[in-house]
Amino acid sequence: MGLFSSDIKTLDDLFVHTLQDIYYAENQIKKALPDMIEKATNRELTAAFKAHLEETEKQIGRLEQAFQLLGKEPKGTTCPAIDGIIKEADETAGEIEDKAVLDAAIVANAQAVEHYEITRYGTLIAWANMLGRSDCASVLQQNLDEEKATDSKLNSMALKRVNRKAA
Amino acid sequence: MGLFSSDIKTLDDLFVHTLQDIYYAENQIKKALPDMIEKATNRELTAAFKAHLEETEKQIGRLEQAFQLLGKEPKGTTCPAIDGIIKEADETAGEIEDKAVLDAAIVANAQAVEHYEITRYGTLIAWANMLGRSDCASVLQQNLDEEKATDSKLNSMALKRVNRKAA
Repeated sequence: MGLFSSDIKTLDDLFVHTLQDIYYAENQIKKALPDMIEKATNRELTAAFKAHLEETEKQIGRLEQAFQLLGKEPKGTTCPAIDGIIKEADETAGEIEDKAVLDAAIVANAQAVEHYEITRYGTLIAWANMLGRSDCASVLQQNLDEEKATDSKLNSMALKRVNRKAA
Repeated sequence: MGLFSSDIKTLDDLFVHTLQDIYYAENQIKKALPDMIEKATNRELTAAFKAHLEETEKQIGRLEQAFQLLGKEPKGTTCPAIDGIIKEADETAGEIEDKAVLDAAIVANAQAVEHYEITRYGTLIAWANMLGRSDCASVLQQNLDEEKATDSKLNSMALKRVNRKAA
């Protein structure tokens, strides 16, 4: 995107820009997940990440469907937010040796990723509806529902087992 | 923090590290808010940001209280996640000229900030309780409640007015 220019003129443009942002983010998450699967020790956690990797691939497909509905080529735009969240997760993991403490950190950072996605999908759905694109809203709603379910699952795992083991 | 070393050995260490992370984040948000207040056009939105700036100052005070309860000096640790979220907000704002579209983008990015804080406070409270520090949990709960209320307020503003004007 050209800085110092006004590339985003309308809410339609902002919607497409944010769709490109989350498309980039989902692709970065797809790249980051195998590393989280490798680092995690708790079996339930690795299983959840493996399931989420498959889900992420489907979510990328749904985003491509949303681009198609808009008559646009699927394209990402660099998203410093997800880059920062993933960088922070990597840096923290690099400072932890204890497996149980590392699991607790991994869950927390995965929840930070989920929350970023939840806020972006929430916004995109609101804008899609405002722009009369209920077709896009409905595709994006499926991704939002999955992200919320993943966050709940991680939360429950943290509270029931992961944190207890780390403490 | 020393990379390639294991500075975080226990859940207590991870708790303090994450407290430093959100302390840095809240201070960055305090620095970023005046710029958001200046850029926003919608009066209700600027009023909400002004109220949130005051709230953020109080939240920083509560974090200092949590450090004190732990017998630690309040200290921040660079948080690439919040840096990324704020960088993204600045970059997007720099590409938008239309005031109403800019307001819609500002609300979306403020909600991304809120969601980051919500996930971190949620984690910190769970860890505090696990570590038997209900005193810290109770201080952090106040911050979490305020962040959730701010996110709801932004959501309702977006749905009722801001997005409509931008469309």
